[in-house]
Amino acid sequence: MADRQSLILEAAVRVIARSGVRGLRVEELATEAGVSTALIYYHFKDRAGLVQRTLAFISDRATVYTDEAVEGTEDARAVLLQLLLGELQDTPRVRENSIAWGELRATAIFDADLRAALAESTRNWNRDTADAVADAQAAGQADPAAVPLDVAERLNSLVEGLSERWLSGSMELERARTLLEGAVDAELGPHPG
Amino acid sequence: MADRQSLILEAAVRVIARSGVRGLRVEELATEAGVSTALIYYHFKDRAGLVQRTLAFISDRATVYTDEAVEGTEDARAVLLQLLLGELQDTPRVRENSIAWGELRATAIFDADLRAALAESTRNWNRDTADAVADAQAAGQADPAAVPLDVAERLNSLVEGLSERWLSGSMELERARTLLEGAVDAELGPHPG
Repeated sequence: MADRQSLILEAAVRVIARSGVRGLRVEELATEAGVSTALIYYHFKDRAGLVQRTLAFISDRATVYTDEAVEGTEDARAVLLQLLLGELQDTPRVRENSIAWGELRATAIFDADLRAALAESTRNWNRDTADAVADAQAAGQADPAAVPLDVAERLNSLVEGLSERWLSGSMELERARTLLEGAVDAELGPHPG
Repeated sequence: MADRQSLILEAAVRVIARSGVRGLRVEELATEAGVSTALIYYHFKDRAGLVQRTLAFISDRATVYTDEAVEGTEDARAVLLQLLLGELQDTPRVRENSIAWGELRATAIFDADLRAALAESTRNWNRDTADAVADAQAAGQADPAAVPLDVAERLNSLVEGLSERWLSGSMELERARTLLEGAVDAELGPHPG
C-alpha cells in the first residue's frame, strides 16, 4: 500500500479510537494525518469508502500484532492461546485497534454499508483461529471431537466480548486474560503437556 | 417507578436502538415520548442522568424477558441455558434492548460517567448467571469443578459477543444460538439427563 494511504488510515484509526466513528470527519482526519482533504477523497472516494478501508486496515494490523504475540512459540496449542491473548494486551496499539474495531462493529448495526466489510474481516479471523485449533488437534493437544470452526467462532466472539468489557471498564485486563485461558481449556480439554 | 418515568425510559431505549446513544437529544426524546423537555429534566436532571437511568432500565427489562424465557422450565441446567438464550431472540423487544445495551457499552469507552452504572449492571447479570450455574451443579447437572462466577462471566461475555455479531450482520441468529449451546456443554460437561 502506498505510504500516503497507510498514513491516512493510521490517522483514521487514531481518530476513531479517540472520538468514535461518528466523530470521524474528513476535515479532522486531514489535520490529524497532515494531508489535504482532496488527497483523502482521491484515495478513498468518500467517507463510506474511507470507513470500509479503515476496517480492513484494522483487521490487517491485528494480524500483525497477534502474529508477533506467537513469535517463538512452538507448541501448537500455545500458539492458539497466544493468538487470542494477543487481542487482550495493554499496549497503545492493541487498545487503539480494539476500540476502533468495537466502534466499527457497533456502527455496522446502524450502517448497512459497513456490514459486508465487517463480515469479511470476521470470516478471515474465524478461519485463522480455526486453523490454529486444527493444528492443536493434529499435534494431539486438543480434543479431537471439537469442531474447529465452532470453537473458533466461540473463542473469537468471547475475545470481542471480553475486550469490550475491559475497554469499557467492567473488567480488569488480567481477569479477561485468565477467563480466556479457561475458555480454551473448556473447549479443547486440559492441555496434555 | 412512576408511569411517566417508564414512558420516558422506554422512549429513550427506542431512540438509542434507532439512532445510537450519540443521536439521543432531549428534544427528540421529548417528541418520541410525547412529553415536555422540562419533564425529562425534572425526572432525570440532565442528559447524563437520563443515559445512566436508561442503562439500568435496559438491564431490568432484560431480566423480565430472560425470566419469561425460563418460565415452565424445571431442569436447573435448562434454566441456565434458557436464561442465556433469552438474549438471542429475534423479537422487537430483545433486538431493541440488545442494540441499546451494546450502544451504551460502546459509548462507555468514551464516557467515564457511564462506566460505574455499566459495571454495576454487568455485576448483577454475572451474579444471576453464576447462581444458575451453581443450581445446575447442585442438581448434579454440571461439572462440580467448574467455578460458577468464572463460567458466568465467560458465558455472559460470549452472549455479548455473539449478540453483537448477530446484530451487526456477521452471524445468523440460529448459528449464534447453536454456538451458545455448545459453549454451555463445553463449560459444564455434557448434560447427564
